[in-house]
Parts: sequence; C-alpha cells; structure tokens
Amino acid sequence: MPLPTFSITPLGSGSSMPTADRNLSGHFINVSERFFLIDCGEGTQYQLIKFRLRFLRINNIFISHLHGDHFFGLLGLLSSMHLLGRNRELNIYGPPDLDKLLTIQSQYAQEAFSYDIIFHKLGFAGNELVYEDKTVTVTTIKLKHRIPCNGFLFREKERPRKLLAEAIVKYDIPEFERNNIKAGKDLTLSSGEVISNELMTADPVGVRSYAYCSDTAYNEGIIEQIEGVDILYHEATFTEAHTDRAKETYHSTAGQAAQIAAKANVKKLLLGHFSARYKDLVPLLDEAKAIHNNTELVVEGKAYDI
Amino acid sequence: MPLPTFSITPLGSGSSMPTADRNLSGHFINVSERFFLIDCGEGTQYQLIKFRLRFLRINNIFISHLHGDHFFGLLGLLSSMHLLGRNRELNIYGPPDLDKLLTIQSQYAQEAFSYDIIFHKLGFAGNELVYEDKTVTVTTIKLKHRIPCNGFLFREKERPRKLLAEAIVKYDIPEFERNNIKAGKDLTLSSGEVISNELMTADPVGVRSYAYCSDTAYNEGIIEQIEGVDILYHEATFTEAHTDRAKETYHSTAGQAAQIAAKANVKKLLLGHFSARYKDLVPLLDEAKAIHNNTELVVEGKAYDI
Repeated sequence: MPLPTFSITPLGSGSSMPTADRNLSGHFINVSERFFLIDCGEGTQYQLIKFRLRFLRINNIFISHLHGDHFFGLLGLLSSMHLLGRNRELNIYGPPDLDKLLTIQSQYAQEAFSYDIIFHKLGFAGNELVYEDKTVTVTTIKLKHRIPCNGFLFREKERPRKLLAEAIVKYDIPEFERNNIKAGKDLTLSSGEVISNELMTADPVGVRSYAYCSDTAYNEGIIEQIEGVDILYHEATFTEAHTDRAKETYHSTAGQAAQIAAKANVKKLLLGHFSARYKDLVPLLDEAKAIHNNTELVVEGKAYDI
Repeated sequence: MPLPTFSITPLGSGSSMPTADRNLSGHFINVSERFFLIDCGEGTQYQLIKFRLRFLRINNIFISHLHGDHFFGLLGLLSSMHLLGRNRELNIYGPPDLDKLLTIQSQYAQEAFSYDIIFHKLGFAGNELVYEDKTVTVTTIKLKHRIPCNGFLFREKERPRKLLAEAIVKYDIPEFERNNIKAGKDLTLSSGEVISNELMTADPVGVRSYAYCSDTAYNEGIIEQIEGVDILYHEATFTEAHTDRAKETYHSTAGQAAQIAAKANVKKLLLGHFSARYKDLVPLLDEAKAIHNNTELVVEGKAYDI
C-alpha cells in the first residue's frame, strides 16, 4: 500500500517585496489529505487559485512572524474563504499581536465572517508542540531574526508495526489480537507458547518530516531539532558575497543554509526567500550544493513529495 | 504640439475575490506625467511590477472604501516603497478609518517607513475637491454602496487660449502681453487701437476628464457630475439576470452602468469589477453595448489614452 501523501508546495520564493518572477512567502502542505498553510504573504490566495490548490480545505494556518511579506495576504485569504461560504472553523497560529491585527481589521470590514477563527498565540521558546492530530505533530523551531520568529517542524507520528501476512496464517492470529501485536506485544498461544513480536511483525516505514525555517540568521541552535528531516526549507536570502548584509538583517546566505542542512544531515534542502537583487539564482544554488549536494531552488507551485 | 498624456491603466477587473484571470481593483493614472493610484486591492503591487509601471512615482493614492478588495494591497505597496528607499512624501486619501488601520499595522511592523505619509480623511458628501495641482483637479463622487464609498472625478483645468502665430506677427505682440492675451484679454496697441482677443487667439483644446465609479448601485445622482466625461469607469458586477443580487449587494448590472453612461453622455464606458461567477464576459458587454455603444470590458494592464 502506498504511503499517504506528504507534500509541500511552495507558493512564493521572494523576500520582502515581489518581483516579476517571485511571489512572497507561503507553503501549502498536504499531510495525509489534511491541508496546512505556513505564512501568507501578499498574493498567496492568487497562487493557491493559480495552482488549483483548494484553499477551503486548509484548516490550520501557521504564521512565522509579523514582517509583511509573511502575512499581508492573510486578510485577503480569510475574506475569500468567507465569500466562498466557509463554515468550518479555521485555526490560526501566530505571534500574539497578529490576533490584534486580525480583530481590528475585521472590525473595520463591518461584516462578520461566515466561520469562526480560533487563534492560537504562539510563544517563541522553540520546540513547543502547537498542533497534533492522529498522523502528524507540528512543533515550533526557534529562529533568530530581527523580530520574534518561529519555524515549524512537521513530523509524522510513529506508525504501528507491520503485521506479516504469513505470521497471521502460521500462528492463526485472531482478529482481536492484531492491534496489540502491531503495537509491539508478543502473542501467547492457547498452548501457552509465547510467540515473540519480532517473528510476527516488521518495522514500520520511518516517519517523514519537514522543517520550515524562514526567516533566520545562521543558527546552529536548530540543528538538533531538525536532525535527519526529509526536507528542510531554509531561507537563503543572500549569496556569500553579501554575508555582511545577511548578518545585519538576520538572514542567511545560501552557503549558511547548506551548512545547517549538512550538519543536521537532512535529506533534501530547499532554498527560498531570495533577495530581489538576484536575477540569476544559479550562484546561490552552486554555493549551497558545494556544501550539501541534495539541494534545490524552490519552484513556485511545484509539489515536493516526501 | 501633442497633448500631454492622460491615461488610465486598470490593474484589476475582478470583484471581492480574485480568479485565475482577474485581479482586484486598482487604477493607475497618468495625468501629464503625474501619477495617481485609485484603490489598491491585494496584488496591486504585483500588477504594477508586471506592467512595468514605476510605482515610486505615485505620489497620491485614493481609496474609495474599506472593502478588502479595494485596499488589502495597500500595506504591501507602502512597504515596498519603503524597501525601495522612497523619501518623497506620499499622500493617501481615504475613509477616516483607513488612517487607523495604517497606523496600527505600521506599529506592529516595528519599522518606520523611509518616507512620510500624509493622510487626508475624505468625507462622503460628494463633489468635494480633494486634490488640485496646476493641470488637474480630483473631486469625490458620492456613490451608493453598503458602506460609505467615494468615486473620483479627474478633470483637467481649463487651458489658456491658443495665441495665433500670425497674430503675433501682425500686431507685433510683445512678450510680456502674451500671457494676458492667452488668459482672454484684449490688446491695446501704442496707437490706442484695441485688438479684440478673438482676433489673436483660438479656443483651447477642451479639458479631458475621467470618472471612476466603483462600488455602487445604480445611482442617477451621479449623472450631473460626470456629464460628458471622456471615460467613465463604472462597475458592472452582474448581468441583468442577477439584478436582484445587484440591488441586494449595492452593486450594478452592466446594463445599469450603460444607462448611467448614456444619460450622462459619456464618450467611452469601461466596465469592470466583474463577479467571479462569470467566466464569459461577453453577455455583460452585449448588455451594455445595446444601451451605450462605445463600451469596453477593461483589459488589465492596458493603458486607455484620452
């Protein structure tokens, strides 16, 4: 049986302001047909429409920080959800002040939304569990930016062990014992004989994980938490030539993003959040690949499947 | 000598929410190389970039009303102007509450803009002069919407009369008298003879004008003010089949827009602000053309020259 979907669709690759080719931050995430959005720069709803991503199915939106390129599209998206008659409640997770902004804005719009918004104020201590359902958890990642900023780690929960078809036949395993065995228990036969779990099961497929780290200066503090993730999206606002500018603005160079990826042994690194000053992004890619070979520049609208 | 530019570039043709083909409200206006923006729905800055309209040259922004599709793009645009190092002050004209929204938002952005914003609170009495320079005036148009809403009338000032080259020679008109003659005065020669103005001048080219009327229900109250304008942009959210819906939401049908255009003897009618429900807009155009033949559906990014 194929694994359920775990895919990330970046909607924007630019930073601060859009260019003719680059939209602002927003990642659409599908984990087992549950849909999430991280960040919502201006134009995010246009991108969702353009790439035919059904945004009414998004039930959880995470906002990393309150720089405009990460949330100025939120009100437009919320408003469109209202216009489309959404009635299911929507969860928004973000910095405490975002709640005030939303309240004030909707107050002036003079129209109540057709659905409830449940706002979850996020702290900035890092590594806090902020979302959980039966298949996935989301924890915050403490980033290092000019203003408080969270990254987000999506990690599947451990799956039950795989019950082997031949073991079912061999030991005549009754239906009611199967979940216990998948959970790791041994089986006692009516004869009194104990069959050890490892004779009946195989290891489950490993859990998949995705880390979103934007915006942030080079920060080794995140390495332990993102160790071994399948995909790390890490901002790469600048090239090495602008290392000073990166430091000054609490952003990273492509090389720094790759150093984090290499030290954390991530499988694939996706670079984004490029400064508008770069027309050609190949130098950023080259810089990163020299340090962490499995690196790509994000393509807006492309679904990266894990 | 050709007339200076007077052109209108609509940036969006949709209403309420964007579609794959339609952006939200925003009109870029060039009057004699002075640049204005009316309304600023989400994505307006993307459109300005896409159509290579240099938005740092906009010094005056007019916001009709506080529905999101008319102003949710404003903060992003203001923020980009800051990032591009704008230092010239920017004038914004809009409903009083817009000022509060801007103040609150910029407060949370925690970064002062590189330029000053001068906010002009607009009333809703209609026909108020809100902007004036040496070539053009802008007055509000009282529209009829669910919330207070202004349209805007751009009208060139009267030009001086044209001084005829042959008259200059014939009457040997000295340099210092010419502005008086252009202003309509007669000339007294040294002999005492009075040369009447009409022998020396021709009528100036008529003033050009543009009226922006969105969002509004059918409203004959605006006819007198927009009488004879060169271009009327009038919202046409619905077709005749949805007249009830238009009435309910204080919007207009294409036919109603054309009735206003016909009764006001406008030269050209531009329709926009189309409901997302219509994929094919030809029925709206047909409906309007049957009443006012010189009608077009706005094309986003096209400069309409007067």
